[in-house]
Amino acid sequence: CGKVMNKVVEFPRKLKKFGQDDPRRIVHSLKVGLAVLLVSLLYYFQPFYNGLGDTAMWAILTVVVVFEFSVGATLGRGLNRILATFLAGALGFGVHHLANLSGDIAHPILIGIFVFLLAASVTFIRFFPRMKARYDYGLLIFILTFCLISVSGYRDEEILEMAHKRASTILIGAFIAVFVCVFICPVWAGEDLHNSVAKNIEKLGSFLEGFGVEYFKVVGSGESNLAHLQGYFSVLNSKQSEETQANFARWEPRHGRFRYRHPWRYYLKIGNLTRQCAYRIDTLSGYLNSEVQTLLNIQNNQVQELCMKMSSESGKALKELAWALKTMTEPCSAASSHITKSRAAANNLKSMLRTNAAAVAGVGGDQVRLLDIVPAVTVASLLSEIVAYAEAIEKS
Amino acid sequence: CGKVMNKVVEFPRKLKKFGQDDPRRIVHSLKVGLAVLLVSLLYYFQPFYNGLGDTAMWAILTVVVVFEFSVGATLGRGLNRILATFLAGALGFGVHHLANLSGDIAHPILIGIFVFLLAASVTFIRFFPRMKARYDYGLLIFILTFCLISVSGYRDEEILEMAHKRASTILIGAFIAVFVCVFICPVWAGEDLHNSVAKNIEKLGSFLEGFGVEYFKVVGSGESNLAHLQGYFSVLNSKQSEETQANFARWEPRHGRFRYRHPWRYYLKIGNLTRQCAYRIDTLSGYLNSEVQTLLNIQNNQVQELCMKMSSESGKALKELAWALKTMTEPCSAASSHITKSRAAANNLKSMLRTNAAAVAGVGGDQVRLLDIVPAVTVASLLSEIVAYAEAIEKS
Repeated sequence: CGKVMNKVVEFPRKLKKFGQDDPRRIVHSLKVGLAVLLVSLLYYFQPFYNGLGDTAMWAILTVVVVFEFSVGATLGRGLNRILATFLAGALGFGVHHLANLSGDIAHPILIGIFVFLLAASVTFIRFFPRMKARYDYGLLIFILTFCLISVSGYRDEEILEMAHKRASTILIGAFIAVFVCVFICPVWAGEDLHNSVAKNIEKLGSFLEGFGVEYFKVVGSGESNLAHLQGYFSVLNSKQSEETQANFARWEPRHGRFRYRHPWRYYLKIGNLTRQCAYRIDTLSGYLNSEVQTLLNIQNNQVQELCMKMSSESGKALKELAWALKTMTEPCSAASSHITKSRAAANNLKSMLRTNAAAVAGVGGDQVRLLDIVPAVTVASLLSEIVAYAEAIEKS
Repeated sequence: CGKVMNKVVEFPRKLKKFGQDDPRRIVHSLKVGLAVLLVSLLYYFQPFYNGLGDTAMWAILTVVVVFEFSVGATLGRGLNRILATFLAGALGFGVHHLANLSGDIAHPILIGIFVFLLAASVTFIRFFPRMKARYDYGLLIFILTFCLISVSGYRDEEILEMAHKRASTILIGAFIAVFVCVFICPVWAGEDLHNSVAKNIEKLGSFLEGFGVEYFKVVGSGESNLAHLQGYFSVLNSKQSEETQANFARWEPRHGRFRYRHPWRYYLKIGNLTRQCAYRIDTLSGYLNSEVQTLLNIQNNQVQELCMKMSSESGKALKELAWALKTMTEPCSAASSHITKSRAAANNLKSMLRTNAAAVAGVGGDQVRLLDIVPAVTVASLLSEIVAYAEAIEKS
């Protein structure tokens, strides 16, 4: 009983925390409520109702189904729905007309064949990754509308009027949804994508900055605070959400600092490189708390110093890049100087190991860190090139 | 013009290849066609039509929207839709009745307040990750049905009869969709998940098996065939699809070798470990073609041999584990013996490096591979424990 009470007491607190984590969620919920309220007014105003009748319910349906969190998603769904409804409506009407010419017996058979063929082929098209990404919803609505129009047409001879009413209600519904979504505290998928890519690079940067200190401190004193180094976890599995956001962003018009045909796919490229870097970092972080560590007692101060420098310099470079990306400036010289420093430290360490092998050989596992960081640095410098490229395009 | 012709000629070939890649896609498309055909028969049979009237269109809508690729997804959507429709219908009717008692002026205001509050709060609930994973569709339908019933009730006094008809058509539609989906070549999300997790482990295994040979051959002769080593790429980003499938699988009844409450979450655990292993492997594969390689001229035959042994043995162990998981047997002793051998090789290499440091110091970068493989081996042995655990539960 106490446990249940506990849960009941805790629930509102959880709810509150969840809302505070991202206040846009609360705003979005209120926006949906507002849009539904607006569309339900259609029922209450006599002139509207007389014009549209029961089909006004299609407007409600459209608003509820089309309204999404970001502007891009809402626009995409709305346009998909409108286009698919019109195309499928026209096609359905054509098929219905054709079937009507063929007599009472052939009519249902013809319609049945058409419905079967169209549903099967459009479903197959939905499997194509490129269609799925952008037009999945439209294809679904296409099947739906085609079936409704061509099948129901068998009974209803006033098909044209019905189609006209339904199309206008869907237009009204989509318009209300898009209007509320765009003009009241809009959430832009493109901006989200931009920020999350920059944020991810920053996370990797702060890991690398903290890593050097943490690694040698752990070996030295056994004390550790790993929690703040685990920010990079979320980067590892960010691929799918980035791709979804880029798809939504393609639907969005010009907003803020982003043009209509902003080169979103560069974000995906940067995201991929960031993830590759994150995989390296996950490997590195394995050394922080695995049994491998017991092997690595680093006494050589020079090695330690160089490793720490590499780690912190590349971390700083990544942070500079994230900042440059966020503010959409050319990556400043600070970033490239950090990279140069980090590269220099890496080269020093390499040559030191080669020439002075015997001296450091007792260190054993320490070279691991060196050669693990090299790819990280490589990725970082690659990143900087890509970012510079993306920036150049963004500015043009 | 020639380019366009080329594309036109190539399109059917692409289509064919796409179908051959996974023939279940074609079967699924035909199943959707069949289900839509079946439901449209409702319109043609006079007795059905007289009973249901125009609301028969809700059956078509339900079939098109509910029918998904796997049984779990279809069942989940169908149950969500039915439950949400009933609950929201009852609630909507209650609110409509309440508002009716309050007189003509208060009625629309009351309804408006209720619609706004419900739409906003349910939309907020949809943001919770756990609700989103399993009940997202149901919550959407809940808002939709509630609005339709409570708002349209203002005009239509025969609301009960309408609700009754609509509920029965939705039941019929959902029933047809589930029936066709389950009884004609069903695609089980659980089986898919099972196979893809096993397949992923196998991919990592074959990478490790091939890696040793490839790595030393490249250094030696410069010739390489990397293509067959890149199978592990798809493992890196498999998290989201595995989670989706596990969510679908929870809806599925007993099928094949899987019980109703199969411990799907163990698959997610295994999947997570597999991915961690894949990150390590991605790091390793970086050494295959980066500039780091130029550093690594390995002359020491003993080191080379031990590294190759570690790599191939742990690869074999992973493959054995994948096979055991796939056939749902206890992981056989072969797997653990491979792991033991691989561990022994790793320990040998470690101690060799420690005692004979000067001799191998010139090798420099080679220890990298050693200490990179250690985590891989660790993960592999962890995997074997988890698999044994999962197996034990699967059998009970």
